[in-house]
Amino acid sequence: MKFNELTVNSSRLWESLMEMAEIGKAPENGVSRPALSKEDGKARDLLTEWIKPFVDEMMVDEVGNMFFIKHGTNSDLPIVLSGSHLDTQLHGGRFDGVLGVLAVLEVLRTLHENQILLDHGFGLVNWSNEEEARFCPAMGSAVFSGKLSSEQVLDCRASDGSHYGTCLKQIGYAGNQLPSSLKVKAYLELHIEQGPVLENENLDIGVVTGAQGQMTMDVTLQGVAGHAGTVPMRLRADALACASEIISQCRSILLKKEDGVMTVGTMDVEPNSRSTIPSKVVFGMDIRSPHSESLEQLKNQFTEAISSISQKHHCTNNVEIRSFKPPTEFDDSCIEVIESAAKKLQYGYKRMPSGAFHDACMVNEIIPTGMIFTPCLNGISHHPSEYASQEQLFKGVNTLLHSLSELCRK
Amino acid sequence: MKFNELTVNSSRLWESLMEMAEIGKAPENGVSRPALSKEDGKARDLLTEWIKPFVDEMMVDEVGNMFFIKHGTNSDLPIVLSGSHLDTQLHGGRFDGVLGVLAVLEVLRTLHENQILLDHGFGLVNWSNEEEARFCPAMGSAVFSGKLSSEQVLDCRASDGSHYGTCLKQIGYAGNQLPSSLKVKAYLELHIEQGPVLENENLDIGVVTGAQGQMTMDVTLQGVAGHAGTVPMRLRADALACASEIISQCRSILLKKEDGVMTVGTMDVEPNSRSTIPSKVVFGMDIRSPHSESLEQLKNQFTEAISSISQKHHCTNNVEIRSFKPPTEFDDSCIEVIESAAKKLQYGYKRMPSGAFHDACMVNEIIPTGMIFTPCLNGISHHPSEYASQEQLFKGVNTLLHSLSELCRK
Repeated sequence: MKFNELTVNSSRLWESLMEMAEIGKAPENGVSRPALSKEDGKARDLLTEWIKPFVDEMMVDEVGNMFFIKHGTNSDLPIVLSGSHLDTQLHGGRFDGVLGVLAVLEVLRTLHENQILLDHGFGLVNWSNEEEARFCPAMGSAVFSGKLSSEQVLDCRASDGSHYGTCLKQIGYAGNQLPSSLKVKAYLELHIEQGPVLENENLDIGVVTGAQGQMTMDVTLQGVAGHAGTVPMRLRADALACASEIISQCRSILLKKEDGVMTVGTMDVEPNSRSTIPSKVVFGMDIRSPHSESLEQLKNQFTEAISSISQKHHCTNNVEIRSFKPPTEFDDSCIEVIESAAKKLQYGYKRMPSGAFHDACMVNEIIPTGMIFTPCLNGISHHPSEYASQEQLFKGVNTLLHSLSELCRK
Repeated sequence: MKFNELTVNSSRLWESLMEMAEIGKAPENGVSRPALSKEDGKARDLLTEWIKPFVDEMMVDEVGNMFFIKHGTNSDLPIVLSGSHLDTQLHGGRFDGVLGVLAVLEVLRTLHENQILLDHGFGLVNWSNEEEARFCPAMGSAVFSGKLSSEQVLDCRASDGSHYGTCLKQIGYAGNQLPSSLKVKAYLELHIEQGPVLENENLDIGVVTGAQGQMTMDVTLQGVAGHAGTVPMRLRADALACASEIISQCRSILLKKEDGVMTVGTMDVEPNSRSTIPSKVVFGMDIRSPHSESLEQLKNQFTEAISSISQKHHCTNNVEIRSFKPPTEFDDSCIEVIESAAKKLQYGYKRMPSGAFHDACMVNEIIPTGMIFTPCLNGISHHPSEYASQEQLFKGVNTLLHSLSELCRK
């Protein structure tokens, strides 16, 4: 068989995914395997057991990131890393994170049974605590990328008061500083899309160009309460009428752009009484765009709309920016390698930004990085109904296999 | 002194109002005197003590409505009634309701000290339980008007489980069926406007033409939850974006009309999470208009807007009409009598509908009825800051004096 025709074992991959989903199994195909829980420990154990025959080296760093390395033929060359995370949301699904880990296991198995050796070393990484189920998100990859110190992470506490360092020891995954000799050439991550784009366009592969930047803000509108029957319309300062017009207007502004999304997900109305004109409304706005300039422009246009509409409604307004993450742009050569692999395999693909944040965005800060998306049913994730078909996953992992092999051969 | 120049005693009226406000006194000029409470009993006692010297007859009906009657010179003629209610909201103010009761006391005092006898008998009524502080509103006047039976009212329970009949007995105001010989020619009620119209137009008197009809409805919009970052705008079914457009659109429809008001006072968003597209929104809409046809038309236009905007947003909608009260139209001759009195007294006045519901709307069902409004500060009521100046009240009670006298002389 020519290497170009090499594919992974689709049913072996599926079986591993289903077996892993038994750890932290929740009703209706759900999985609850929050970071550093007993279940996370068991999942790490199972992964270690499975992968041992196919790698030469194992390392666990101080915050619990796990590295499994298969040496290349040339030990002077930096290694290529790929992976994702085994932890899940509370009542999450069977694919988010774990797919990117078990995909690399499947790549290793496939290379092994076909006796294929690569020039560069090649490693799987399981990032510690990606989801936000207990602790703040993406802490493992943040330490690897130098964004957080290991001390900061080890000392932090979960919402339930648990101590990161203690929990990590309890599951047996407190390790040591990585050797400075570890050099990484590139990082790839395979993940379900968590959105409906690929499914809707009937495509197999998303070649991820980066991740959207995100700005979140709280908008507070202060009006004047009044009797719903006796205050004429023109004398009102109705905070909810004002909020409604702002939301509609900002939506119109956004829809005129080519990309980006905006969501008002939370709204609290005071006094929230049937026969009283609302005196106060607070809503939370989430704006994302793959382009820094767009995000900045949207911020200005929205602030302007909020101000002028508030004035019209005789309301005062306060806009508080809660967070601002600039967009991530993945490495051009990684993007090209993935695109070439999808093309070679004759899969339907498109370049697209990621709507969500991933460990890859952290790693991209210090290492050339790329991501591959596979479609998922109705774009749903973080929910028991999260689903991707065996066929969809097969194509995703094949794309990863050929992208990794290409990077390890160059 | 000519009768045409007769006026009430402004400071005596004010003192009575302030003394009554001591019963159930709450912080910051507030009054808490819910219906059938100990305080309501004390207020009824004080009213009885004050009014005794000026009337010939007292009656309390089965549900606690109190009637005080001054005989006319011709006992064959039906009497003219006027009044309002002594009960208040929890943490209500000093004027809502009590003004209309003590105004009639002041009219009786004024007629007495000027030794003026009228042809028709003339009575004060204190309606039992007008506010919605404990029981459903306007129960006393509903029984008088035949809308409810006395049994229905006596057996009903407050939100705290209290029994109407028992509470009424406890304060000593459980009476008997009114004599069938009691004939009423007309009913007038003086009340603070509870809105900002008169104050804004710098007028003294509102000649009330009727009360707005009211329709309340619950609108439920069902969309689809999704990740705020990964679902493209065109694939969303965002229930809050949909609700915002509906509210803005209905407001635009309403503003094109000459009268009527609409308020969305309540809104609940699910899951109300910052990074999730809202899957469900329920909001409560209150629509009022002085014209039956307008109300019906608004209902149709709003329902149509809700339906087409929901479709555009890929949301399903459900509209539940919770209540429908047709507008009240007061008696033309009562309106004219009040208007003539205000004109004669050279007060600034205008015809206007009432935004709120009053006992007068009930009484209007069986007896020719009219209402007089006086301005109140910033249109505020049902709140400790409820206020009307001595001068404003003076003009209101003078208008009542001359309107009642006119009706009692004809």
